[in-house]
Amino acid sequence: MPNLRVVLVETAGTRNLGSVARVMKNFGLQDLWLVNPLCDRHSDEAKHMAVHAPEVLTNAKVVESLPLAIADCQRAIATVGRIDQGEMPVIDTRTAIAWLSQMQDTAEVALVFGAEDRGLSNLEIQHCQQVMRIPVNPEYPSLNLAQAVGICCYEWQLQTNVPRSSKLSRQLASQIDQDLLESKPIDLATRTELEAYYQQLETVLLKIGYLYPHTAFHRLQKFRQISDRANLTSAEVRMLRGVMRQVDWAVASSDK
Amino acid sequence: MPNLRVVLVETAGTRNLGSVARVMKNFGLQDLWLVNPLCDRHSDEAKHMAVHAPEVLTNAKVVESLPLAIADCQRAIATVGRIDQGEMPVIDTRTAIAWLSQMQDTAEVALVFGAEDRGLSNLEIQHCQQVMRIPVNPEYPSLNLAQAVGICCYEWQLQTNVPRSSKLSRQLASQIDQDLLESKPIDLATRTELEAYYQQLETVLLKIGYLYPHTAFHRLQKFRQISDRANLTSAEVRMLRGVMRQVDWAVASSDK
Repeated sequence: MPNLRVVLVETAGTRNLGSVARVMKNFGLQDLWLVNPLCDRHSDEAKHMAVHAPEVLTNAKVVESLPLAIADCQRAIATVGRIDQGEMPVIDTRTAIAWLSQMQDTAEVALVFGAEDRGLSNLEIQHCQQVMRIPVNPEYPSLNLAQAVGICCYEWQLQTNVPRSSKLSRQLASQIDQDLLESKPIDLATRTELEAYYQQLETVLLKIGYLYPHTAFHRLQKFRQISDRANLTSAEVRMLRGVMRQVDWAVASSDK
Repeated sequence: MPNLRVVLVETAGTRNLGSVARVMKNFGLQDLWLVNPLCDRHSDEAKHMAVHAPEVLTNAKVVESLPLAIADCQRAIATVGRIDQGEMPVIDTRTAIAWLSQMQDTAEVALVFGAEDRGLSNLEIQHCQQVMRIPVNPEYPSLNLAQAVGICCYEWQLQTNVPRSSKLSRQLASQIDQDLLESKPIDLATRTELEAYYQQLETVLLKIGYLYPHTAFHRLQKFRQISDRANLTSAEVRMLRGVMRQVDWAVASSDK
């Protein structure tokens, strides 16, 4: 199976950090990434809640932005609690985990969770290819952070650690959203390669007057969604960037 | 769907109580039963962790024994963390929840969780028809109580609150263990009716010398398992008790 990392953005609660470490280890996961944490993972409270999983906290990687936390991931999913996600399609937890776990063994994949109070911003969500929501009661949708992580870790364990020959395994196989998973990509572009492409695309589209600065962000969201759905490979991204360079050159030449 | 009650046996942590109340409401559940609780559900710490679900704590029923907590339930499942459950077959979480949720709308069903430190005793497990274990990492199987409850509530919400017409619903339907669920019982005997039958059975079997006091418990476990697998109705239990009375009368007569 690929390596799943749990990415927590601006977590404020030390107890939540410890509880996340414990439940990750309960389900065989070790790779925790903290984006700009607002609390101390080394605090006694965090260690107390981690119980027998203090090393998950000690070994956690701390970075300053979400793009840095998922730069080398081939697939990243944003988890949201809000019911309305605007234009982004939202998939269920089981399908989301299946979509991550189907990658090859060498792949890095990520599940991203927002801050306890505000969740993930639309900009942060844009850095991921899919948006997942745990099916909660609309009357009280606010799950504790560690509970949300725990439910996702449970699905991961269920879908990756059951013997391939077992009945449960066959049952699980039947519940994958085939529309989403019908084609299994081999060598997907990393988020870094895609972000560089999006940057170049925006620059060029602004330069040629297709985009205007005040509308660029929302218009580019559509390009991002199309590219993400396309499951671009590294080679395809290089090709597209070659097209952008060519357009850039052509525009520059015509200015003379 | 039937009414699912969450039964916690001798819970010691006020924070766990509050977290359980919160996650139950997150997934649309309200019916909490506490068997001989070792902490105060009205404490500030419990209320703090319950956040917007204080009424789940306030309305919780407190009883002195597990049989009292599931007396009117048609189906009750014991949750265990230990890998070895001796003679009791252990089913997975998804199948367990499907087994409970398939009952008629008027039915009462229960999920039973043991104390944080020791879990459920073999005697407590005997009062339930099925034993369920969440698939954890054998190297660190000890889940936080509220995490375990949360994962089960998530499965319940998933299997009972998705539109029947949806793709997810059809996906879920395909993962039920058909061997276990092929026949949908209509009017199962309650746990109280079955316990009364088991008591009478033990008395009679001791009286006729089939059981000996020092081996009665383990031998009766096999009778319990057979009866539970048989999904006895109230009428069938009355019939079996009639047979016991007849045996009892016959033995008494022959003594003369």
